[in-house]
Order: sequence, then C-alpha cells, then structure tokens
Amino acid sequence: MRELWRFSPGLGICGRASAVGHAESCGPFGACFDFHDAQDRFGARTWETAEAALGQVVLNLALKRAGMSHKEIDLLLAGDLQNQCVASSQGMAAFGIPYVGIYGACSTFVEGLLMAGLALSAPGGVERAAVLATSHNCAAERQFRLPLEYGGQRTPTAQWTATAGGCLLLGRAPRPVCLCAGLCGRMVDAGIRDAANMGAAMAPAAADTLLRYFSLSGEKPEEIDAVITGDLGREGSAILHEILAARHLFLGTRHQDCGAMLYDLSTQDAHAGGSGCGCIAAMSAAHVLPQLESGKWRRVLLVATGALMSPSSLQQGGSIIGIAHLAVLERTAAP
Amino acid sequence: MRELWRFSPGLGICGRASAVGHAESCGPFGACFDFHDAQDRFGARTWETAEAALGQVVLNLALKRAGMSHKEIDLLLAGDLQNQCVASSQGMAAFGIPYVGIYGACSTFVEGLLMAGLALSAPGGVERAAVLATSHNCAAERQFRLPLEYGGQRTPTAQWTATAGGCLLLGRAPRPVCLCAGLCGRMVDAGIRDAANMGAAMAPAAADTLLRYFSLSGEKPEEIDAVITGDLGREGSAILHEILAARHLFLGTRHQDCGAMLYDLSTQDAHAGGSGCGCIAAMSAAHVLPQLESGKWRRVLLVATGALMSPSSLQQGGSIIGIAHLAVLERTAAP
Repeated sequence: MRELWRFSPGLGICGRASAVGHAESCGPFGACFDFHDAQDRFGARTWETAEAALGQVVLNLALKRAGMSHKEIDLLLAGDLQNQCVASSQGMAAFGIPYVGIYGACSTFVEGLLMAGLALSAPGGVERAAVLATSHNCAAERQFRLPLEYGGQRTPTAQWTATAGGCLLLGRAPRPVCLCAGLCGRMVDAGIRDAANMGAAMAPAAADTLLRYFSLSGEKPEEIDAVITGDLGREGSAILHEILAARHLFLGTRHQDCGAMLYDLSTQDAHAGGSGCGCIAAMSAAHVLPQLESGKWRRVLLVATGALMSPSSLQQGGSIIGIAHLAVLERTAAP
Repeated sequence: MRELWRFSPGLGICGRASAVGHAESCGPFGACFDFHDAQDRFGARTWETAEAALGQVVLNLALKRAGMSHKEIDLLLAGDLQNQCVASSQGMAAFGIPYVGIYGACSTFVEGLLMAGLALSAPGGVERAAVLATSHNCAAERQFRLPLEYGGQRTPTAQWTATAGGCLLLGRAPRPVCLCAGLCGRMVDAGIRDAANMGAAMAPAAADTLLRYFSLSGEKPEEIDAVITGDLGREGSAILHEILAARHLFLGTRHQDCGAMLYDLSTQDAHAGGSGCGCIAAMSAAHVLPQLESGKWRRVLLVATGALMSPSSLQQGGSIIGIAHLAVLERTAAP
C-alpha cells in the first residue's frame, strides 16, 4: 500500500495566474489577483461561456508570466463544476494541448496537481504540465440551485460559489517553489444531505486526509508553515478543528481556509464563505505561491476539499460525499 | 515536448471484470460479460443509483478474479456520464480507496488507464490501481435527452448509451498482458452541433490521435493486431476510415469499434451503435483482454473517444468537441 506519493525532486512551479469576478476583487485579496472583470462576463454572452473565457484568460496569463508558449505544455489537467465539465472543454479546446478532464468538485485543483506530479515523475511521462480549475457563481447557482433572478434566501451555513480561476504550470526543472509530495483523498460519507451545508460534508474528509498525512509522514504540524484548505468556509473549518482536536491534532493559526478568506465575511454577503473549484485555484496562485516565493513560508500543505453530489443525487436521497486531496509545496531555494 | 508516454516495463493487468444490462446481454458479445441484470436495475431503486450499483458489482468481480482485497488497491480512477460524476462517487465511496474522479465522456476509461500508467510508473507513486467506467442507458437518456417514457424518435446516426461497466486492475508486477504506452488526446472541434451524431464529432479526434501515434512511434499498422475504438459506432467509424485514407493510413479489418460491436445492429434497435463510457470499458474486459490473454492478439491499440458537451452547451450554440485517448496493450509472455 503506497498512500503518500513522493514526487521526483525538482518538480518546479514555473508559472501561475489567477482571475476573479467583481465580488472577489472587492475582497481582502482583491489586489493579489492578476485579472478581474467587474461585469463577471469575461467577454462572453452567457455565464457558462464566461467561465470558459475566464479559464482562457488564466491559462494565457500563466503562460505569459512563464514566458512560455502553449506548445511547450505536454499535458493540461483541468476541471470545473459545470455539467460534463464543459467550461474546461469549451475553454481549453483551442489550445490544442493534450487534455485530461478531471472532476473532484472543489477538490479538483489539487487532484490536478497530484496527477501532474505523477506525470512529471514518471520517467516516460511529460516535461511540463498545466493545472487549471475554474468556477463561476452565476453558472453554478442556476445549475445546482436556482437562477439568480429567483433571489432565493440562503442559510448561514451556505457557501458562495466563487467566480474565480487559477492555473499553475509545472516542469521537471527545479524552481524556487516545488511540488514535493501528495496524498490522494478517500471519500468520506458523513451522511450530510443539506446542500447548504457543504462545509459539514467536507470537514470529515479534510480531517481524514490531514490525520493520514501526519501519521504517514511522521511530521509534526510545527514543521509546516501553513495548512491551506479550500473550501471549508467558516462552518466547515470549525468542524475540522473540532474533529482534529478530538484526535489531538492542533493546527492553530497555521490553518487558513481559502473559502473563509476570499470574501470579507463581515461586509460581503457570502455567508459561510466562498466555495467552487476556482477558489483554492485562484488563492493558490495569488496568495500561497507568493508567500512561498517571498520566503515567508517554507513548507505548505494545500488541501482541497470537494463535495461530491448532484441535484439529482440529493433529490434521490443520496448524501454529500466529501473528499480532500493534499499536495505539499516547498520553497527549496533561499529567497 | 513529450507526447508519447512510455510506461515502466511490466505494468501488468492483474484483474478484469465487466457487467451489462439486458440489451447488451442479448448482443453478439452477451456471453462474454461476467454479469448481467435482465432488469437493468442492479438491485437499486433509480436508474442513477443502478449505475452506481453496477460499478460496485464490476469492481467487486475484478477484485474477486484477481484474488485481491480492496485494501490492496492504492488508487481508484473512475468516471461516468452523470452530472458531477455521481455514479462513481456514490458507488465507490464505501470501498474507501484513494479516489481520483475523471471525466472524458466516452473516453473516460482509457483516460483512466493513462493516469494509472503514470501513477504506476512514477517511482514514488502507487503499487496497484483500479480503473473503472460505467454508463446506464436510462440514466443517460433522461439527463442528456428525454425521459424514456417520452418515446422520442431517434435518427439513424444516433447512438445508444450502453448499460455497461468495466474495470481493469493494474500493478507493478508483470502479467501476461501489460500496459506499455499511452498517447493523451487533444481536443478537436469539428463544428458538429448535432447530439444525435456524436460519431461525426469524435471521428476527427480519433484520426488525430491515431495519426500522431503512428507518426511518433514509427510503427506501421501491420505491427498492430487490432485497433479498438470506442465508441464511434457505424457512422463515426466510416468517417474515421475516410479521414485516415486521405492521409494514407489504412487500418482495414484490424479496426474494430466497440460501439458497432456491442449490439447486433441488424436486429437490435441501436441505430449507429453503442456509446457511453461503460461500452469500451466492458468490451475491454470481456473481449480485448481475453484475445490478448489467449495469444490471438499480441499488440493492441485501445482508443477511447469522447464527445465533450452538455445539453446546456449545445443549447447555447456550442459545438461537440471530440477527444481520443490511446493506450497500448501488449501480450508479453508466450500464451
């Protein structure tokens, strides 16, 4: 049984970019994102195609920052929340990069990092990979819940799907920040059936992954500078700390949740916080990577949590299954 | 640029299983599948959960044939056609295996084989992986098109989503049949907007992948015993041969399409043939692997084709984007 994957030394992150919508640009990290569209439309006519366009913006910005052409990318791993992941396929088709579609709900981005880590570590695999995830509030609302025009009330535990996207480019050459290891999540069914409380459905999976990580690696939380989850929100984060405390694992302030950070929860109407697979993707590119690059952090656990369900599965009495994938990012060179 | 992935020597296929519904059990390969349910329900109350149950049957049968426990599997790659891939998450959660959800429409199964090949080839990766894909006619019809009760007419180019699932188990130990190499597909947009003609949307992607494979590998079609596509159906297969002929690549009778083979197209009402990501998965386990194991075939290209679209993307004027992933399977020991 091989649970903790050790990637080849020197899998460097050679590019990063993020883009968000209006609400996200007004949040605490608004200035950190590379691009925002105040109309949330990204030049497209529908919300669904706006998300596809957002993905294109992000990939193009990441390539530009890395000084690379899309022809130098051997593998593109991308995913989103739309039915049949069409934001990714419609947005990415024109690049002509060998493409692997992934689906892990809000865990998609780190799922992609893990697959990229394997593809770059395999001797006969790829030289460079791009990992991308997007979400769009207006596309997600009418697909999973109700059209925005309906103006439905939201409960305090509900999360707000972020209009956001993020991309990391990875290669076999060492860079200041490297992808070192990964732990693939197991599905955890906590019996939650309330789509307005995804934090409660995902927190047990995040706990399972973190407990397994510290047990398998033998590391202590003190050796990690930051544990970044995305997106448990305020509700799920509290549950995570409760579960971990019962198992004597205390993360304290080194835990940050992308969903809880993306919006100002005291003034922006985002209830328990942000969600959507673009949230941790954008925050990774705009917040986590810069902290590592600047040398403020040396070793980070990036833990993306997903709520695996569909409107149909809930209507048929199914529960929301949680999953959490973990990637270890490390600053390898002196800043 | 690394396009053709060479996996580590000795990635053996150590388990396989398939299960189908009633119509598939009445087709030409009916006797080859490990299990069929004459009511298509697999013990479940809804068509959606029936697909999840079908997946459980298939994974359990593959483990049983391999004499393995689910605890010996380090990584499960699975996907289906339902919104948010819930057939896989709802069906597979109870196994507790580290899980990666994948989406490539009908190309999902080979996409999974490619990711498994990388995960097994990476030195710090996994020891054993399971790849699984399912589809269910009744769940797919009401999600993508109309409920069965509506009795909608179908055009001759339409394909019939198979009620089927297949699973392969792979490990780092050599077995008579090994996974040797893979080519990840690129998205090809041929401008097709007719969901009743997916063969036309996928054939150009299959051609792109096959032309790249023969160009990159330097092999000739004569060195391959069988080129198995899934699922172009009758219509897509004819278009594939037309495109390849214009490029002077002739596959002749060594090309077989799982969609065209699953049903008896002269007596069963399946129009252009089967589709759905369970089709090539089940046919791989029930037809391709046995031919390799018996020594009838030595080297096979398994080419799974996907039509990337959703009802929303089509309603908004998007085209159906094709993709085709290729895996090379080889009989390595004398039969």
